[in-house]
Amino acid sequence: MIEGRHETRGAKETGRIEAFSDAVFAVAITLLVFSLQVPTLDNPSTSEHLVRMLLLRWPSYLAFSISFATILIMWISHHVMFKLIDKSDTLFMFANGFLLLLVTTVPFPTQLVATYLTTPVAGVVCAIYAGLFLMTNLVYNLLWWLAAHQSRLLKDSVSPMLIHNQSRNYALGAPCYLLALVLAFWSPGVSIGICSVLWLFWAFTTYERRSAREVYRKQRFEPDKKERHNEGRFDDGNKA
Amino acid sequence: MIEGRHETRGAKETGRIEAFSDAVFAVAITLLVFSLQVPTLDNPSTSEHLVRMLLLRWPSYLAFSISFATILIMWISHHVMFKLIDKSDTLFMFANGFLLLLVTTVPFPTQLVATYLTTPVAGVVCAIYAGLFLMTNLVYNLLWWLAAHQSRLLKDSVSPMLIHNQSRNYALGAPCYLLALVLAFWSPGVSIGICSVLWLFWAFTTYERRSAREVYRKQRFEPDKKERHNEGRFDDGNKA
Amino acid sequence: MIEGRHETRGAKETGRIEAFSDAVFAVAITLLVFSLQVPTLDNPSTSEHLVRMLLLRWPSYLAFSISFATILIMWISHHVMFKLIDKSDTLFMFANGFLLLLVTTVPFPTQLVATYLTTPVAGVVCAIYAGLFLMTNLVYNLLWWLAAHQSRLLKDSVSPMLIHNQSRNYALGAPCYLLALVLAFWSPGVSIGICSVLWLFWAFTTYERRSAREVYRKQRFEPDKKERHNEGRFDDGNKA
Amino acid sequence: MIEGRHETRGAKETGRIEAFSDAVFAVAITLLVFSLQVPTLDNPSTSEHLVRMLLLRWPSYLAFSISFATILIMWISHHVMFKLIDKSDTLFMFANGFLLLLVTTVPFPTQLVATYLTTPVAGVVCAIYAGLFLMTNLVYNLLWWLAAHQSRLLKDSVSPMLIHNQSRNYALGAPCYLLALVLAFWSPGVSIGICSVLWLFWAFTTYERRSAREVYRKQRFEPDKKERHNEGRFDDGNKA
Repeated sequence: MIEGRHETRGAKETGRIEAFSDAVFAVAITLLVFSLQVPTLDNPSTSEHLVRMLLLRWPSYLAFSISFATILIMWISHHVMFKLIDKSDTLFMFANGFLLLLVTTVPFPTQLVATYLTTPVAGVVCAIYAGLFLMTNLVYNLLWWLAAHQSRLLKDSVSPMLIHNQSRNYALGAPCYLLALVLAFWSPGVSIGICSVLWLFWAFTTYERRSAREVYRKQRFEPDKKERHNEGRFDDGNKA
Repeated sequence: MIEGRHETRGAKETGRIEAFSDAVFAVAITLLVFSLQVPTLDNPSTSEHLVRMLLLRWPSYLAFSISFATILIMWISHHVMFKLIDKSDTLFMFANGFLLLLVTTVPFPTQLVATYLTTPVAGVVCAIYAGLFLMTNLVYNLLWWLAAHQSRLLKDSVSPMLIHNQSRNYALGAPCYLLALVLAFWSPGVSIGICSVLWLFWAFTTYERRSAREVYRKQRFEPDKKERHNEGRFDDGNKA
Repeated sequence: MIEGRHETRGAKETGRIEAFSDAVFAVAITLLVFSLQVPTLDNPSTSEHLVRMLLLRWPSYLAFSISFATILIMWISHHVMFKLIDKSDTLFMFANGFLLLLVTTVPFPTQLVATYLTTPVAGVVCAIYAGLFLMTNLVYNLLWWLAAHQSRLLKDSVSPMLIHNQSRNYALGAPCYLLALVLAFWSPGVSIGICSVLWLFWAFTTYERRSAREVYRKQRFEPDKKERHNEGRFDDGNKA
Repeated sequence: MIEGRHETRGAKETGRIEAFSDAVFAVAITLLVFSLQVPTLDNPSTSEHLVRMLLLRWPSYLAFSISFATILIMWISHHVMFKLIDKSDTLFMFANGFLLLLVTTVPFPTQLVATYLTTPVAGVVCAIYAGLFLMTNLVYNLLWWLAAHQSRLLKDSVSPMLIHNQSRNYALGAPCYLLALVLAFWSPGVSIGICSVLWLFWAFTTYERRSAREVYRKQRFEPDKKERHNEGRFDDGNKA
């Protein structure tokens, strides 16, 4: 009975933080559409001209897509992390607030990349873009460290192995984005490429891992299948 | 008891995805208002001049209305689909993420139509507009296929006939929007007309079907009235 | 037992419509801030100049405040109406969708008033502004008529007197806004004044009525105090 | 049993107000990103030029950060206040509506500071900025006064000492922001500095107090640890 009440309280405690975070993620991801600008045409214009103008804007479509995918992965990560968390903490809340600040900022470097990717200053804008994702990843690492080690906010059912795996997954993102940041000055294209591939890599790994595990499970008929299945679902999606 | 717990878990699993999707739909539908631009007048202006300027902007009101109605229908479809769904899946989540990307993009082609519908490039912008709705419909088909066949995410209570009807409804949208896309190059007006009529057609069919069914029910006094009523409510609203 | 399930189902049925509507109201009310534009100053500027420029923008602050207050009252009305409603209906959902379209549109005439209130075309923009609120009120009347008469979506506990009072309250808004619309062509100031006063009038009446009723209740010690208190809370706030 | 029903009703009564407020806070905090404008470069531009242009925009990053942090603290305050509140009231709802109006307005003075902090008119814009926060604080005081004294909307479990502490905390913000407003005319930098330091001060105090209390608790093994812990969590975060 006491256990039950404790659970409910815990759920409610992080519930409103989650709802607020979700709303910020949702608004930020939707505001990205403003990086897609309608071209202004000189009056006597042809269809070919408009199509050419629209195609010339490919950097904005690319930046929009990468930013959208990255915020989506961030949201999934946030979702997965909070599923493992039982209670909240002032320091944790401020770290989460700082994360939301970074998420909110994403439309700005997205706009920078959309505007300047095909100009001589592409290196700088790609470095800023990768730099923001690097900072976001560091804050995810901080959040996880606070939850798992410093303030012990996790549910009791979270196993040490899961904690270890998550820590490694979060830690893996930082060097990749750092590489993207540094390479931006040599080749902006490679930098942007890393940002996209990182996302695709995580998306595919998540899917394949799950499938592999499912097959494994069907062979073993584990009794606690459901529980572990849920915990491990986005193992690899958490790194962004 | 085990059944009960399973149900709750399933509800919770898709719950946060639904809430996030709803927020994205709501923000995207509200951002459409930016396609309505206030005209700038030369200083010594008359009321007639302003009214004429505002009336000249009819393409933006039309595009705003069609986009609003279409996103609303998409949201209702999403709602109906998730009411039949029990659990989630990584692949399904990424397909849903791609759907949200398309929904988020809607303000961009809306703005294109609002700006260029009365110019010689109207064909291109109408084709892009219909093309986005076509892609959205294809992703709805993909989502439904994943839910109903590939990953089996539906509730056990969903009957094979309902699955079949839904599949047909989703599949019906694609050729219509493809027609609108192709016809755009011959007649932009017809293309935009199809986009509006499609929506009106679905809206009215949904209503009439329900009424017809209700009359039929009152004559038969079916015991399981409530359940079937709910499942079939938006049968025809799902195609967008 | 069956009663209980029915209640839960009903609650869930309108639950997601309410959540979506709330989100649209919240985004629309927040987007109003874009009607407040930062003035651009010529380089060598003084503080007095900036203050004068900011004060000259009083129409935008006025339009922002009236629109904010009106959307807020609309949201409260929506809230109150849905508290009396048990179930939903396709026609009702589309009427609600049309209401959301009007709510979403509010930033546009707000911007018109903010830009043109002090110019010779003020009459036209005030008429459009009042016209939008008139249409919104008519849709509220339609929604209420659908809920109370045509489709009978209300909870069984709603008394005929409450239905009658609500109907009268909703109906009262239309002639007021129609007056504001017509008067706009003679005096834009009076028209805008009616829009503000209507809101203030409702806000104050709601408060005073409630207080009066409370005093009355304390004298009578009614046993069902809580229930009626809840139903009647925003009696006068529903007219917008 | 009656107690239980009363609790649920109370929870539901403020539930939708909280959800709506949360959505407005979330949208307002995300719209702040529009104060970060992408600089337009003359065509033949170098990386150094872009970096210099971006660094010159430091006022916009500063204003964005302070506004973000302040809205976040406001949201936490709102959250904490509503955790102590049981029921709602028409007057309280309108006061809450006025608070939301102020929160919605934040992007406007933020933009003013971002644009004019390094110009001769900095004093005026900083005074407006501090002035808005002063007004917000006054509305928080009003809300708390309505909840705790005028309309008695608090839960029965809230102790008089907690009420007294909260009242003092809310009251403390006003003179600080008033000081920032007045000093703006002498030194805009000091004024902006106070706005940032106020926030940092509250953030750190919240954290340290909690830690101190936790240590104290571990020594005493209090039985009602959980309850008091929850109530006092953001004691110092409520002043914004």
